[in-house]
Amino acid sequence: MNKIVTIQQSIMAEDEKFADAIRADNGKRGLLMVNLIGSPGCGKTTLLEKTAEARRLSFAVIEGDLATSRDAERLAKHDIPVVQVNTHGGCHLEANVVQKAMEALPLDTLDVLFVENVGNLVCPAEFDLGEDFKVALLSTPEGADKPLKYPYLFTSSEVILLTKADLLPYLNFDMDMFTRDVAHLNPSAKTVHVDSLSGRGLDEWLAILEERVREKKAHAL
Amino acid sequence: MNKIVTIQQSIMAEDEKFADAIRADNGKRGLLMVNLIGSPGCGKTTLLEKTAEARRLSFAVIEGDLATSRDAERLAKHDIPVVQVNTHGGCHLEANVVQKAMEALPLDTLDVLFVENVGNLVCPAEFDLGEDFKVALLSTPEGADKPLKYPYLFTSSEVILLTKADLLPYLNFDMDMFTRDVAHLNPSAKTVHVDSLSGRGLDEWLAILEERVREKKAHAL
Repeated sequence: MNKIVTIQQSIMAEDEKFADAIRADNGKRGLLMVNLIGSPGCGKTTLLEKTAEARRLSFAVIEGDLATSRDAERLAKHDIPVVQVNTHGGCHLEANVVQKAMEALPLDTLDVLFVENVGNLVCPAEFDLGEDFKVALLSTPEGADKPLKYPYLFTSSEVILLTKADLLPYLNFDMDMFTRDVAHLNPSAKTVHVDSLSGRGLDEWLAILEERVREKKAHAL
Repeated sequence: MNKIVTIQQSIMAEDEKFADAIRADNGKRGLLMVNLIGSPGCGKTTLLEKTAEARRLSFAVIEGDLATSRDAERLAKHDIPVVQVNTHGGCHLEANVVQKAMEALPLDTLDVLFVENVGNLVCPAEFDLGEDFKVALLSTPEGADKPLKYPYLFTSSEVILLTKADLLPYLNFDMDMFTRDVAHLNPSAKTVHVDSLSGRGLDEWLAILEERVREKKAHAL
């Protein structure tokens, strides 16, 4: 399937109800749902492309963007089912539109449903989409001071990916600050250093997903 | 003055009224106000540090962050008057809190008042703070596809700064796409490539500001 479905985000109404319904449905189905959150250009789509190339998991993606379907087009090339949501200025995805997007996806054939949220370190962290867990992505050029400056995302994510690790030699990235601040904000988070060009960290990322997929499926039976 | 004043953002009320009042006051005073908007880590604070080091303009900064006063502390070292606004989850600054912050600044001694907005390509573009113009900052690691994906900021800014130009050799940045998309979205915008490490583009940036400061002061008399 490489058809891109595009839907528009409408006004939010009783969004918690939608998130709860999504979580209940996915529980019955044994489908793991993961909400990817990070700044514009932090590497969310590239991570999904590399996850697709590894061919270890069957997954679909709900793509949130203000405008364009560029990311959906990138993923559709990998034969991943994709629904593009254009928020037209909206700074985050909401559960009602995610539920609608899910109707266009072959949920029973999937291990994982990824939501690639709007590129934004702030607002998406505050909206429950019914996911099993959030993943915070921070790219090395953004700087090591960001977890403390944008604490809501980093405290509410189970997995923290430090992306573009290949650029570290060209940056003044304070790894001690990053490690210390993340440990302080969220001691139980799994932190993985990822470099999608060399493939560094990808195996660790996939292993985390596979373990959670197994748990989710076992729980559904 | 290197004392950092910290205030908290309160609930917005009739924000347009505040923006209009700020614009009217600055018009009388001949004070240029510039609203800097870009993703977390795109180089807003570094640009202000370099602008301070050049010693060509007298300016103050209103710093917007969810949490911490790290950016304000960086600027205070350059003897720049700074007010730190912590939004505690708020994704943008609003005019009412900017007006309050201005009360703590020596406005009559300044050429420029900068607002360094919360790191976010989305929401800050939608709120008028009473500024003379917005500056959109995009750092090269974020990728050339961002203007079309986040069009609201790029269409509403008079100046577009492409920062971290020094990283171009290590990135797959499609300069043709960037130039074409920006020209399409905002044909009259001034685009400057900036590299704060080598100082590239800084003179052009300062010249834009100086011209606008002259105009603003002439208009006030």
